[in-house]
Amino acid sequence: MALMLRKVLATSEGFSKADLTRLSKHADVIESWRMDQQSVEGILPEVEAVILLAWPSFMSRENMSKMRRLRFIQTVMVGVNHVPFHDLPKGVVVCSNAGAYSVEVGEHAWGLLLAAAKKIIQTHDAIKEGGRSIASFRGQVKDVLVLEGKTMGIVGFGGIGREVSKYAKAFGMSVLAINRSRKTAPGVRFLYGERGLEHLLSVSDAVLLSAPLTKTTERLIGEKELGMMKKDAILVNVARGDIVDQGALYAHMVADPSFRYATDVWWFREGRETLETEKPLATLPNFVGTPHTSGPTGLAGGRPFTMAVDNTIRYLRGVKPKNVVDVSDYRRS
Amino acid sequence: MALMLRKVLATSEGFSKADLTRLSKHADVIESWRMDQQSVEGILPEVEAVILLAWPSFMSRENMSKMRRLRFIQTVMVGVNHVPFHDLPKGVVVCSNAGAYSVEVGEHAWGLLLAAAKKIIQTHDAIKEGGRSIASFRGQVKDVLVLEGKTMGIVGFGGIGREVSKYAKAFGMSVLAINRSRKTAPGVRFLYGERGLEHLLSVSDAVLLSAPLTKTTERLIGEKELGMMKKDAILVNVARGDIVDQGALYAHMVADPSFRYATDVWWFREGRETLETEKPLATLPNFVGTPHTSGPTGLAGGRPFTMAVDNTIRYLRGVKPKNVVDVSDYRRS
Repeated sequence: MALMLRKVLATSEGFSKADLTRLSKHADVIESWRMDQQSVEGILPEVEAVILLAWPSFMSRENMSKMRRLRFIQTVMVGVNHVPFHDLPKGVVVCSNAGAYSVEVGEHAWGLLLAAAKKIIQTHDAIKEGGRSIASFRGQVKDVLVLEGKTMGIVGFGGIGREVSKYAKAFGMSVLAINRSRKTAPGVRFLYGERGLEHLLSVSDAVLLSAPLTKTTERLIGEKELGMMKKDAILVNVARGDIVDQGALYAHMVADPSFRYATDVWWFREGRETLETEKPLATLPNFVGTPHTSGPTGLAGGRPFTMAVDNTIRYLRGVKPKNVVDVSDYRRS
Repeated sequence: MALMLRKVLATSEGFSKADLTRLSKHADVIESWRMDQQSVEGILPEVEAVILLAWPSFMSRENMSKMRRLRFIQTVMVGVNHVPFHDLPKGVVVCSNAGAYSVEVGEHAWGLLLAAAKKIIQTHDAIKEGGRSIASFRGQVKDVLVLEGKTMGIVGFGGIGREVSKYAKAFGMSVLAINRSRKTAPGVRFLYGERGLEHLLSVSDAVLLSAPLTKTTERLIGEKELGMMKKDAILVNVARGDIVDQGALYAHMVADPSFRYATDVWWFREGRETLETEKPLATLPNFVGTPHTSGPTGLAGGRPFTMAVDNTIRYLRGVKPKNVVDVSDYRRS
């Protein structure tokens, strides 16, 4: 009998041939998108590792209870909030893909910030409608924000935060950042704890949310926190919609039109991120929104898949994988 | 009889009290906006220097012929293409206000580039219209441009070009630049002449126009030059609309929807910059336009007025003023 290779289940298209070939040297790679549901379900009890983009429907609670060999889950996405941590068998290691999209998301975040700061959408749309003179815009221009000399606050200093801090420094801004780990980065002042967050929110002209959505960060920015921010601050969200309390945000933006919110991420409804918000945010002139387009840019380039494969190979070779998720951040007791 | 102070005419509001007080130590400052037209015209023959924002209507060809003492004109704007060089008495020194808006315009240019690169306006407006899912945008995302690793070409490397080159480097781009003067700047590769421009246009993923509008740069970018550019390049204009041939641009953008044009500046019609274009550019999905809002941001801060006053004081004290315009760049023979 031939030696049984360990089984790795890849559950979405997007892997390059080179990535799959590389992975095959360490495991028997099963490509679920080439199989019917029944065949996939039949093989689940033998699977040791799964690489996934969206959470696959066949990994239901019931089916997972049959996955006795499951030890390792690698996500292609950075955020792991879509993983059903409560249903996972104990001892399964979950790895995020932190850093895989840092450049793409960082660039997108800076685009959102500048679009809001320079009122690019509002003025562009008014020009498109027609009938306006250049002089008629002078009044609207007074609340254009010049970034030079201002303060950038970064909540969650991972790969995206690091990218954005480089841009902020090139734009002549001071940079503050919050992070749980005691990181350092050139030219960035780190703050800690609740008092750190309060200070960051109160002095920053622009605030970037780039932290994972965990039980600690869910609704981190509510009425109280918005109230601490500068009246004409710009809040940029490239993390997850649910870090912000939607009702409080809407009330704050209506009450203060000089406050701006620019986001690439949306709230979850019935388990799915959706553009259908409870409050009509997109109708507000101080709102800028894009449809989670920052991440897929990176996906198109294939790098996130390559990084996910690399990390899975690390696990298979017995090397400590990167980006191991602390499950207690997500599981509620 | 008291010593006659030299007369400086300030022709628009916006000067701070401090600026006017400083200037008054060197000259008799006449604030034309506080006077009626007849009184202003009466004083013109005694005026030695003029500081102006827009070209004042009372400085008509006929009236200028009476300004026998006129020696110095300082503009608050950076561009001097609104100055009627043909009608100016010989020997009058004209100074631009180069550098006064570099940060504001540079930041705005980067906002335009990112808005076009990340398709922020198109996706925002589609979300605002409603009825779309996040997944439905995946197709549109494929031509999002990631700036890292790409090439930025800067046509006209003054203060704005220098600012933008700093941003481009922070974004991990290679930077090429064209300039008449043999400038250097860290990390920027300078090219010269027509061949230099051709090379820059053909290899750059994003091209910034930040040169003055002179008889050399008028319609610098026409059908031939657009044809040299990469198919999916982004052309950003923060200089003057008339550097680009509008008809050729429109035809190019219609023929190739992946080519993008993002502008804060507009073409002149009957001597005025106007949002009313000959071709319906603003209706194109690959067009981003703002209503010359980058400069006035700087104006609101007062710095351009302060810089204009400082340079006028240099002239009055007999020190060589900065930014003296080479009149031959503007006067056609």
